[in-house]
Amino acid sequence: MRNQRQIRSEMGFSTADHIGVRGMDLVRDLIGKVSLGDMAWLELKGNLPTPEESVLFNALMVTLVEHGMTPSAIAARLTYLGAPEAMNAAVAAGLCGLGTVFAGTAEGSARMLQEALGGAGDTPDLAPIAARIVASFRAAKIPLPGLGHPVHKPIDPRTPRLFELARENGRFGPHCRLMELIAAEAEKVSGKSLPVNATGAIGAIASELGIDWRLCRGIAVMGRAIGLVGHIAEEIRNPIAKEIWHRVDDEASEDVRPK
Amino acid sequence: MRNQRQIRSEMGFSTADHIGVRGMDLVRDLIGKVSLGDMAWLELKGNLPTPEESVLFNALMVTLVEHGMTPSAIAARLTYLGAPEAMNAAVAAGLCGLGTVFAGTAEGSARMLQEALGGAGDTPDLAPIAARIVASFRAAKIPLPGLGHPVHKPIDPRTPRLFELARENGRFGPHCRLMELIAAEAEKVSGKSLPVNATGAIGAIASELGIDWRLCRGIAVMGRAIGLVGHIAEEIRNPIAKEIWHRVDDEASEDVRPK
Amino acid sequence: MRNQRQIRSEMGFSTADHIGVRGMDLVRDLIGKVSLGDMAWLELKGNLPTPEESVLFNALMVTLVEHGMTPSAIAARLTYLGAPEAMNAAVAAGLCGLGTVFAGTAEGSARMLQEALGGAGDTPDLAPIAARIVASFRAAKIPLPGLGHPVHKPIDPRTPRLFELARENGRFGPHCRLMELIAAEAEKVSGKSLPVNATGAIGAIASELGIDWRLCRGIAVMGRAIGLVGHIAEEIRNPIAKEIWHRVDDEASEDVRPK
Amino acid sequence: MRNQRQIRSEMGFSTADHIGVRGMDLVRDLIGKVSLGDMAWLELKGNLPTPEESVLFNALMVTLVEHGMTPSAIAARLTYLGAPEAMNAAVAAGLCGLGTVFAGTAEGSARMLQEALGGAGDTPDLAPIAARIVASFRAAKIPLPGLGHPVHKPIDPRTPRLFELARENGRFGPHCRLMELIAAEAEKVSGKSLPVNATGAIGAIASELGIDWRLCRGIAVMGRAIGLVGHIAEEIRNPIAKEIWHRVDDEASEDVRPK
Repeated sequence: MRNQRQIRSEMGFSTADHIGVRGMDLVRDLIGKVSLGDMAWLELKGNLPTPEESVLFNALMVTLVEHGMTPSAIAARLTYLGAPEAMNAAVAAGLCGLGTVFAGTAEGSARMLQEALGGAGDTPDLAPIAARIVASFRAAKIPLPGLGHPVHKPIDPRTPRLFELARENGRFGPHCRLMELIAAEAEKVSGKSLPVNATGAIGAIASELGIDWRLCRGIAVMGRAIGLVGHIAEEIRNPIAKEIWHRVDDEASEDVRPK
Repeated sequence: MRNQRQIRSEMGFSTADHIGVRGMDLVRDLIGKVSLGDMAWLELKGNLPTPEESVLFNALMVTLVEHGMTPSAIAARLTYLGAPEAMNAAVAAGLCGLGTVFAGTAEGSARMLQEALGGAGDTPDLAPIAARIVASFRAAKIPLPGLGHPVHKPIDPRTPRLFELARENGRFGPHCRLMELIAAEAEKVSGKSLPVNATGAIGAIASELGIDWRLCRGIAVMGRAIGLVGHIAEEIRNPIAKEIWHRVDDEASEDVRPK
Repeated sequence: MRNQRQIRSEMGFSTADHIGVRGMDLVRDLIGKVSLGDMAWLELKGNLPTPEESVLFNALMVTLVEHGMTPSAIAARLTYLGAPEAMNAAVAAGLCGLGTVFAGTAEGSARMLQEALGGAGDTPDLAPIAARIVASFRAAKIPLPGLGHPVHKPIDPRTPRLFELARENGRFGPHCRLMELIAAEAEKVSGKSLPVNATGAIGAIASELGIDWRLCRGIAVMGRAIGLVGHIAEEIRNPIAKEIWHRVDDEASEDVRPK
Repeated sequence: MRNQRQIRSEMGFSTADHIGVRGMDLVRDLIGKVSLGDMAWLELKGNLPTPEESVLFNALMVTLVEHGMTPSAIAARLTYLGAPEAMNAAVAAGLCGLGTVFAGTAEGSARMLQEALGGAGDTPDLAPIAARIVASFRAAKIPLPGLGHPVHKPIDPRTPRLFELARENGRFGPHCRLMELIAAEAEKVSGKSLPVNATGAIGAIASELGIDWRLCRGIAVMGRAIGLVGHIAEEIRNPIAKEIWHRVDDEASEDVRPK
């Protein structure tokens, strides 16, 4: 016989007159009192953020809401074209594409930083850590996460703003400094321009906020779910999915289709 | 030959040094300045909310983030068990279940209210409209959306709080009043207790905020996507999906499985 | 206290040396002995098909596997572009768009036929039933499902082939005849050409095979899941998603993007 | 200016009187003539299978259709509970969980075998290749894919049947032999019982059939999509999702819920 484990959750529950969310009373403590971004922090952390945490955490998510006509947004619109009765499924389709290529990248930099600093003590000497990380990624021929950008050149304009906010809110700590040292070391060793990009800054700041690297893709998921609803709203006002479909279909079979 | 239509979007774009979102500069105007909830309003509306709009819109979404161990949350956790490398797909699986039974219901009440008041003029006489709506739903044997609740009795505790916020922020307008009149009429005609529930209040307030009923499910999708990330975070800390799976599997095949 | 219901399933189970599927032994009875299409019938019905049922059921699904560059196929390819590590999620994204507009339509004709013939006895007089159905859809201003096609004119070439197979395999019964009578009546009343299309034929034949209309979308889902894997395979050999993305993104923001 | 690439697809197209699929005429060549499994081969390969290829390819997929009450099947049922109007989205939710833990594993063994034999010539000496593979996986502390099984002991009953079919159909080639040699070497080196499991056999046979390892997860996706429709069909006949939900919800919040 298999031993049963207890099933437990602290997320929330409902009774006839009460809805509890992470130990708080939804009606009395949360509705009308906390913003959506602070509610997201409560979901992840079990408590409400300090004002400084709130500014930074909202900034990370706001950065990730909207990137224009991404593959994920186009996929959501095409899905809505076929199933307008289920906009939830259209957003789901868009989220399915937030994988390793585009939106999953903050988890890479957060993991690198958190694994490096996990047992590193209170005031680690960061320069040799940065050198070691750059050397090991180069030896394994894996690109360093969080550096460089195909479009935003010479620098990603989001990075200085995010790091400025981290400084203003007392969270420009060792993960942020290590991320900058890794960029400097990578530039020195490779001779190429490799500034910290937005996902590098987000991974570093999320680490300062005590967010496990396994959850960093979740920051993108929360932000982008909102952005995808925005794209569906525009698709209702000004539909383009049908035009995209017809153009692709016409061109794709141009030379096999009988004239 | 098919005529091509122009493909246009106002959502956002990127250049080497600039990221535009709905006519604003992401770095200069939004990061560190607006909260996630206000960013969601910008996505839907194309402008930033007034303070009153912000309070109400955040309140609607905060109401919908967390409902405990819903079918959608359990589905997301089971999906994560099989594909922990893709938490985005686990959240997508959870969103697929936000259909007509649970989370799609605010769109029903919003549609009913918006269609009734669409051409009703500035100061419509609401009582006969309510009577007409109740009569037509009863004639068609369709349950009125936004009334009653299987668990929250005698009233849904979220409704008075949401309507209180609507009053405090100057938005307790005709859609809210009509929703209350429909409840009163339905109770009179049926002899049953049928108070406005949370989805009725959300549909009414969303209508006051000028949100098309087709987008009301989107409010649930944005909120719940955040809640589902919260459930994945707890699943990482304290996994229960495997236990649920084994219990269901053992019991389901109890009498066909050879001893 | 809530009363617990027993959780039961007859689908399958595993023990150390045995895998049972719908009362059969997977290894001894199924692997190498039944085809994928017959396995699908076993999943739905709990027994293996007769040769005639097998021909017809496979024909229905084969009809639905591939439709070229549909919105669903494009969405799957765009999703794969962002998450090539999870082709299962790319297929999932494609399935999310099989809603009421494209692939859900066979369920409409199957429902119409099954509800009409449910209590109609062994040899119903079909002509008045057809007249009644056409009249009631016209009164409600709902288009009749399963008739006409925007591309395939004057007739959908799949319909005569599917009905020919139904005749050859002894299944051109009352649902098929009623579908043809509805088309004739609709043409007479409207004065337009409204031949039975492929989804009308599929809905009728599925009804002859005893498949509940609620499951008819499932025939499309099974077929199209296979087709979507085919599109991912071609996307790996000859990628086009990136080109689609860049073209859409470039054009969509043409007039808001600074020069 | 970006150079445009041509968008091309050979999957299929429609004209007024013709539907082309991979160079064949859907109506004339496929409907009523090929089975669903052979159609799947056509989708992947661009031609119809030989009788031997058909037996083996159908056997691989049949093996993967049904595994009883898996996490993926339970997730699909819970999704259907919330969105019964969209069974396509319920199947999509189930597919989202076919990741690295359960169904993605055949791609691991196929990759290992294909990378090892890619440049190995016509009659490679397999024993030293097996030894090298086992040594390198052990050095990297990565479990060898395709070996051992938590439930099926001492052997996975599907493996001898699948390999028997490979022999009978002239496809027990170097990938199959190498898979068996890897198992023998792993058992020798580890001292543990590590027979080839079903995913190992499937990965090996798929490699013999010339299926790229990147597509091996697709075999599971095609099979399991069919199985998930089967589970939704049973959920309609005999619903269990609501009971699962209530049990989990009740127990999960037992000690935080006010009495």
